[in-house]
Amino acid sequence: MPLYMDVHNSLPDGATAAAVATAHAEDLKIQGEHGVRYLNYWVDAPAGKVFCLVEAPNAEAAHAVHRAAHGLVADEIYPVEQG
Amino acid sequence: MPLYMDVHNSLPDGATAAAVATAHAEDLKIQGEHGVRYLNYWVDAPAGKVFCLVEAPNAEAAHAVHRAAHGLVADEIYPVEQG
Repeated sequence: MPLYMDVHNSLPDGATAAAVATAHAEDLKIQGEHGVRYLNYWVDAPAGKVFCLVEAPNAEAAHAVHRAAHGLVADEIYPVEQG
Repeated sequence: MPLYMDVHNSLPDGATAAAVATAHAEDLKIQGEHGVRYLNYWVDAPAGKVFCLVEAPNAEAAHAVHRAAHGLVADEIYPVEQG
């Protein structure tokens, strides 16, 4: 399945790593309905930045999971090869 | 050790995933001199984008490895927590 890195550039003001963890848990609950697997993420809460590594049939499917789970759709998404 | 995600926004024109792999291998050869450990990376060659996950004592040490190994210093670097 294709691999993507999505990038969130500006979390809502005051968002914490714990809040991101909660949002990620919501992704995991519903991702199966979209054929998507969020693998890992990395967050810099003060900068409002999150990177999500995700296997998905296409970029739109990955976005659809974020949209349905918590509404925080990534600002950018890139098809990537892992080194 | 602190964890960082660095982001390269515009690889040199025509850079391939294989060229990035070669550059990454150069990082690995010298990173010990800087107390740095590049853990993984993800590349979207057509977009000229690379994300590097790296353990380093500080951001400057991570940049110093890239600078000494191949000169392609990241455009952005974020201290991150892994989810």
